[in-house]
Amino acid sequence: MRKKQIKKILVPLDGSKNSFRALEEAIIIAKKFDASITGIYVMDLPTSVEYALLDQVGKHLHKKAELFLRRAKSNTVKRHIQFKSIIKHGKTVEEILKFVKTGKYDLITIGKRGIGSIPEVFLGSVSHALIHKAKIPVLIVK
Amino acid sequence: MRKKQIKKILVPLDGSKNSFRALEEAIIIAKKFDASITGIYVMDLPTSVEYALLDQVGKHLHKKAELFLRRAKSNTVKRHIQFKSIIKHGKTVEEILKFVKTGKYDLITIGKRGIGSIPEVFLGSVSHALIHKAKIPVLIVK
Repeated sequence: MRKKQIKKILVPLDGSKNSFRALEEAIIIAKKFDASITGIYVMDLPTSVEYALLDQVGKHLHKKAELFLRRAKSNTVKRHIQFKSIIKHGKTVEEILKFVKTGKYDLITIGKRGIGSIPEVFLGSVSHALIHKAKIPVLIVK
Repeated sequence: MRKKQIKKILVPLDGSKNSFRALEEAIIIAKKFDASITGIYVMDLPTSVEYALLDQVGKHLHKKAELFLRRAKSNTVKRHIQFKSIIKHGKTVEEILKFVKTGKYDLITIGKRGIGSIPEVFLGSVSHALIHKAKIPVLIVK
């Protein structure tokens, strides 16, 4: 059942310009609805590489993620909107969908390109999957 | 350049339950942003049929469209939101895109299924084309 208001917005972030554009749109909406924003980053590491290397790559990505999530938080809270961030491990689409289900979100805001984007495909693969699989409204930001 | 506010929302309508669900979501957003809503219906008639029959079909569809556009208007104005409707003739996606360009819209709200929908395809063909081709944000309502 569709909710009557927008109270919780989920923004998948990967540090890209497009994901920050989606965050900006989420901020505009959150401001009007007095909604909170959650920024989610999923660390989708290949399982086929050596453990020591994987660990190194993982640490590097985690550090990078912390940086852009901190920037996202700063952009949001200075507009007086509640922000929390989360880092998940696993397959990006699966983890986001799981998180949407448990978190009672009202809206996903995502860039048209951006996360999981392949140049040949117009829509990023994650955006595409979320439009099809998420049970809540998805706002595609250009 | 993305606008900072949502002032004009375009909702493609075809009388389907899904298009009315998209309208409901547009109303929720318009209410908060003090935005106006335009409902658009494109009469996409096949050109391969006899003129007299085409005329008859056209008149029938026009009448039907007037009915659901009137219902859409009633749903919207009772929430104290400005509503105008428009009927265009031509290819649905092309006409909507042309209209978006000239009308300075900030957002398109459309059902996941609904207009131009083919059961085998998850996303309606019109929704799909708008996500890819429109230069403004598109909200996909489930």
